[in-house]
Amino acid sequence: MSRNLPVNADRIAEDIDALAKITEPDHPWTRRAFSPLFLDGRAYIEARMKAAGLETRIDAAGNLIGRRVGTKPGLGTIMVGSHSDTVPDGGRFDGIAGVISALEVARALNDRGIVLEHDLEVVDFLAEEVSIFGVSCVGSRGMTGQLPEAWLSRTSGDRDLAEGIAQVGGRPSVLLQQNRPDIAGFLELHIEQGPVLEDEKKDVGIVTAIAGITRIEITVEGRADHAGTTPMDGRADALVAASRLVLDIRNAAGERAKTPGHFAATVGEFRIEPNAANVVPSKVVLLIDGRAEIRSDMEAFCEWLDAHVVKLAITHGVTIEPPKRVSDNHPTPADASLLQTLERACNAVGAKHRRMASGAGHDTAWIAKVAPAAMIFVPCKEGRSHSADEWAENDDIALGAAVLFEAVREMDKALSKEKADGTHTR
Amino acid sequence: MSRNLPVNADRIAEDIDALAKITEPDHPWTRRAFSPLFLDGRAYIEARMKAAGLETRIDAAGNLIGRRVGTKPGLGTIMVGSHSDTVPDGGRFDGIAGVISALEVARALNDRGIVLEHDLEVVDFLAEEVSIFGVSCVGSRGMTGQLPEAWLSRTSGDRDLAEGIAQVGGRPSVLLQQNRPDIAGFLELHIEQGPVLEDEKKDVGIVTAIAGITRIEITVEGRADHAGTTPMDGRADALVAASRLVLDIRNAAGERAKTPGHFAATVGEFRIEPNAANVVPSKVVLLIDGRAEIRSDMEAFCEWLDAHVVKLAITHGVTIEPPKRVSDNHPTPADASLLQTLERACNAVGAKHRRMASGAGHDTAWIAKVAPAAMIFVPCKEGRSHSADEWAENDDIALGAAVLFEAVREMDKALSKEKADGTHTR
Repeated sequence: MSRNLPVNADRIAEDIDALAKITEPDHPWTRRAFSPLFLDGRAYIEARMKAAGLETRIDAAGNLIGRRVGTKPGLGTIMVGSHSDTVPDGGRFDGIAGVISALEVARALNDRGIVLEHDLEVVDFLAEEVSIFGVSCVGSRGMTGQLPEAWLSRTSGDRDLAEGIAQVGGRPSVLLQQNRPDIAGFLELHIEQGPVLEDEKKDVGIVTAIAGITRIEITVEGRADHAGTTPMDGRADALVAASRLVLDIRNAAGERAKTPGHFAATVGEFRIEPNAANVVPSKVVLLIDGRAEIRSDMEAFCEWLDAHVVKLAITHGVTIEPPKRVSDNHPTPADASLLQTLERACNAVGAKHRRMASGAGHDTAWIAKVAPAAMIFVPCKEGRSHSADEWAENDDIALGAAVLFEAVREMDKALSKEKADGTHTR
Repeated sequence: MSRNLPVNADRIAEDIDALAKITEPDHPWTRRAFSPLFLDGRAYIEARMKAAGLETRIDAAGNLIGRRVGTKPGLGTIMVGSHSDTVPDGGRFDGIAGVISALEVARALNDRGIVLEHDLEVVDFLAEEVSIFGVSCVGSRGMTGQLPEAWLSRTSGDRDLAEGIAQVGGRPSVLLQQNRPDIAGFLELHIEQGPVLEDEKKDVGIVTAIAGITRIEITVEGRADHAGTTPMDGRADALVAASRLVLDIRNAAGERAKTPGHFAATVGEFRIEPNAANVVPSKVVLLIDGRAEIRSDMEAFCEWLDAHVVKLAITHGVTIEPPKRVSDNHPTPADASLLQTLERACNAVGAKHRRMASGAGHDTAWIAKVAPAAMIFVPCKEGRSHSADEWAENDDIALGAAVLFEAVREMDKALSKEKADGTHTR
């Protein structure tokens, strides 16, 4: 690292390496939320928070928070963080890079003797990844009163989510009443989990929006005929019709991706029946994962799809019920003012940056519902994530942490001014 | 039935209905080879054979045979038959219609006091369907010395195939030495298991050849990427490439099916990995079932496929190993002279007929390797087979049985003449 950064890259590397050692030994890197290993990881993070002079606590939603008290607590809280849990057989950086970078911001402020007017909170959100209870973003939803009550009774083994949250130190009895009106601004650093920054040799992605995720199930029903005796032109082959549909979805999504705003649609689940060598396939059930930065893009895609399957069914002599939206979340735009703050911070530390959407979901999406929020991406190797191959260069993470540092300093000043002027209208 | 046939349609219906009652009650119609129910079915058939004056025996391969002795036993045996076992949840006619029609030929000869010069054998072949031992056509292969020795040690539960054959009354110790040089001609009646006769309002299909079956496995390997974050144009989506392949196989087979000679190719097995909603599919394994009446058609299809996957892999940025022929059987042509005999027999009873290939495998294919053999199809409803929906009109079966009756009478005369003339060169 040739740059003279306000953060200490070695300290970041040391913490990320230490957390990497806390893993299921046969499944590197696995530290799933609610597991004993997860609590071991948190004990490490809490100790490092304390060493940095932060006051630590577990909130009602089970988030680990380290607070650095400001000189004017009434101004509210600047929050920075991510998550320390992993998927099974996941990576060393997804979430972890963000928690440690947030911690490093606090340490760098200490190093320089900088006192903020706002309280600063470093957060490790609980269970951002799909957890053993089958749900994700438990901590960020829970902190902001957005956890569905029904989730608390979801079970895994002999406990439910409420018990799981209690076991990590949360308070399920008061969880549903959580509310954080004090959050003046939130920032998250995360690895990109895609190849764009690496391909374009950019240091930082400034995330304009977190794409909405829409999952659509389609069932194609044909007729199971004998594969040897049924003439080729007398079939209702569900696999042939579904294959045409997969290609048409790919092409429609590819065209839409060329217009402004991130868009992707993927058939990720696909199963056929009866799946027997000598029988013409009678049924295919497929699941589309759609992501859109611009809501109208997803609406237009769904309209196209609804009409297209009707035509396809006629062409192929099969039955296709109207596509079923199994889940449908709208995109979450970042706070416009924070995006500018992050751009200035990038320029201050000499980070080459670009604006981009996040195709993946993040804790930021939930905090953004209740407070000004934004996030940055740092490059990761070949876009690999949720795998042992996940890799981010420590220098890239440190440069991202420096951007957070500069942004937090500006937020402290700007948000104080807004409050004084009454210009913050959110 | 308005026609005045030489066979008794009511007797055929009675036997088929009686066998339909011998089924697993919760899975109509199931009477799998080697099961107690299968032996119950055979006990019924044997009793009916005896009632028709036939001498019954179980041969070394476990086939049930009823013999009607001719006046010149040295001339050899005219054999007619099919199988009485079913697939799980199968139908009432597949195989059974052929066994009962063969039996009816013997009864009709009795009714008219006709004595043949040849011995006539009515056969119920053992385990034509894929059996609990995972193999098919056990009886027809075994009768003619074509059963692979290794099959005898295939196991199901606590017994092997040799024990299974012994339990139905066969003699595994001498099975591999079986040989039936006495078969002067063989005929089988079977339901079509396809829609052609019904669609064309034909009574009988005269089977020119039993298609060869070639099974080809193809593995498409792409790259597992995050479905939300990976740009549409930066993917190696194995499902998209495999979908293109399914359509190209469908189109290539469709074109080839328009040329003379039955041809079909079907992707019947298809599975994707990791089959997760938010991951771009990394791998597809698919199995093609190819059927060809003309061997060169299959060779040409395989050549096209080998070259095509190379191009496809490049276009889609995926890896496709050379297609692997998992199994490969050549087509079996019927005896040309017997085809003419069957045509004359159709004309004699007023059956509207057409020549056609069999896309499905049958016992006839194995007998045809060692003796003059041919088969006829009778219509079945909508081509349904191997399902409870399987249906054939009893009048159609009776008309087919009448064709067998006339053909057997002509064979008795013609084959005797050939033998006397020394014109039979086989």
